[in-house]
Amino acid sequence: MDTRVIFTNQVEEAIDSAVEAMAPAGVYVLVDTNTAKYVLPRLQTGSKAIAAAKVLMMSAGEENKNLETLARVWTGLGDGEATRRSVMINVGGGVVTDLGAFAAATFKRGIRFINVPTTLLGAVDASVGGKTGIDFNNLKNEVGVIRQADLVIVSTTFFRTLDSQQMLSGYAEMVKHAALTGPEAVSRLLRYNLADYDDDQLLRLLCESVEVKRSVVDKDLNDNGVRRTLNLGHTTAHALEALALKRGAPIAHGYAVAMGMVVTLVLSRMLKGFPSERLHSFAHWVRETYGTMAITCDDYPELLQAMTHDKKNHRAGEVMFVLLKDWGQPEIDQSVDAKTIEAALDIYRDLMGI
Amino acid sequence: MDTRVIFTNQVEEAIDSAVEAMAPAGVYVLVDTNTAKYVLPRLQTGSKAIAAAKVLMMSAGEENKNLETLARVWTGLGDGEATRRSVMINVGGGVVTDLGAFAAATFKRGIRFINVPTTLLGAVDASVGGKTGIDFNNLKNEVGVIRQADLVIVSTTFFRTLDSQQMLSGYAEMVKHAALTGPEAVSRLLRYNLADYDDDQLLRLLCESVEVKRSVVDKDLNDNGVRRTLNLGHTTAHALEALALKRGAPIAHGYAVAMGMVVTLVLSRMLKGFPSERLHSFAHWVRETYGTMAITCDDYPELLQAMTHDKKNHRAGEVMFVLLKDWGQPEIDQSVDAKTIEAALDIYRDLMGI
Repeated sequence: MDTRVIFTNQVEEAIDSAVEAMAPAGVYVLVDTNTAKYVLPRLQTGSKAIAAAKVLMMSAGEENKNLETLARVWTGLGDGEATRRSVMINVGGGVVTDLGAFAAATFKRGIRFINVPTTLLGAVDASVGGKTGIDFNNLKNEVGVIRQADLVIVSTTFFRTLDSQQMLSGYAEMVKHAALTGPEAVSRLLRYNLADYDDDQLLRLLCESVEVKRSVVDKDLNDNGVRRTLNLGHTTAHALEALALKRGAPIAHGYAVAMGMVVTLVLSRMLKGFPSERLHSFAHWVRETYGTMAITCDDYPELLQAMTHDKKNHRAGEVMFVLLKDWGQPEIDQSVDAKTIEAALDIYRDLMGI
Repeated sequence: MDTRVIFTNQVEEAIDSAVEAMAPAGVYVLVDTNTAKYVLPRLQTGSKAIAAAKVLMMSAGEENKNLETLARVWTGLGDGEATRRSVMINVGGGVVTDLGAFAAATFKRGIRFINVPTTLLGAVDASVGGKTGIDFNNLKNEVGVIRQADLVIVSTTFFRTLDSQQMLSGYAEMVKHAALTGPEAVSRLLRYNLADYDDDQLLRLLCESVEVKRSVVDKDLNDNGVRRTLNLGHTTAHALEALALKRGAPIAHGYAVAMGMVVTLVLSRMLKGFPSERLHSFAHWVRETYGTMAITCDDYPELLQAMTHDKKNHRAGEVMFVLLKDWGQPEIDQSVDAKTIEAALDIYRDLMGI
């Protein structure tokens, strides 16, 4: 696939030269109430294309990634006289880029669009892969299409207004990509001091990380086979998130991914010979960085139930994991029985001190 | 592109063997209030797959090709527990296949779907090309995607419940395809007695016709270049339809296409040397078959205005036509000035006796 991803901390220049090359009939910028406040003024000052663009606004938050907002964006494009040759620029986190990309992919049967992710999670996770969509009928991403952005512009300069939880949440997905790459990639991220990051250094790490996802997605655009490696840690993560939500104390996605990866590594140790010292040092790092979520053996039935029903489970009634023989050596579609998962959760609790 | 189109008058067998080969997790049939009454009972009797399918129903008519109906179809799929491996079968005219295909192309980011057009116009025009969508914000097909059906099953056995106006409306699009093919294809259709058609003969003619469109679309999936030949006669047709609508006496699309083709041939005679005797015999056939719509020179400014704003006009302020040097020899992007168009409309009125 030919999505171009540009990594740059000269965002305004990148936008202007991209828009100039596209020679569009009209530019439309979608922002939410956060990026309207923290990002748009800066872009309007520095970028001629953004200064001249019509602004479409949506309310921030996952609860607004819905059909009503989508219809308002379509109406905004139509009333603003957008044509098939117009370009849409989506500036925001995953909610804005998912919904904005879906709006662009469907308005007049598809216009060109640029994604400018403004969160670390958005940059690492949502900027590549072509997944667009909205939540519908109380289900996440129930409606959407697969359509690659014409261009993604990734910059770390937007992250200065994010809090540490938002940063760490995105960082967990970077660590996941490193786990699919190899031992050096993992050590580099575990050594890096995210609390005191340098824009250009982080941009280089981010570039490496997005390229991992991009190469996986390019090999498998239709969400089969090799792409499933990107699900590493996520079967457990989704179960932990569901449990936390039910307890009324939701946890950020990336935190659940970090903890889910520890469970995955325990299973990988048990079933695939993943090296013990790497499991221990990784668990230690997660515990220090993300803390722990308290679970007891009373929670096991509910966690197992959630894992069995995870939508990425491609075979009914079984729990499928991506396991690692070592860093960089994933094996997809590994069926694990309930007893083994419970044993792994026991070891996970020991490792995390809960 | 690999859309399969099957031409058969054994529809039930075709559906069952296609569904069996797809091995779906659940089959969902979309019908409207017309096809629910006239077509669904027959299919439920003859096809195991349809008998076992969940039925989704929408109200008939272009005015229901909207976001509310789309949302109801998405909800019906979700509540009916459709998954990514389910299959949707859209049974109806262009409204049902356009909306149903868009619903399928977006539900869970895209599930497989089969179109079963039940009108001649739907069979000849909407069954190939991958155009899906809904009307929105008072504009036709304002929202949609390009996505080919996994299978289109075309049968003439559905047409027995159509009235002659519906048949002739679809036939005009077949004639348009013949005009892009050559003199023999045109004579064959002009000689055929549609008022007393034989299912299998008409199926063969339809097969030839759809293959013309399919080969054009396959050469140009993104609606540029060669695909514009399919716009033959449509610039004038849309203007005539708009005028008729404004007069409160709307005419069927195919009727406007037949008349629009006469205007196109007059221009082709004037500018490209299209043979005079072919123009005259075609105009005679249209007059006998479709009748005439009364226009005077007082209508010219409004017709020209509508032509200039036609959405298929790829250059602002000019009127672009597809013209023919002869049957089967189209030339796209022919800019024609207002004086010449008015002269052609004068000759058209002479030919049609108005």
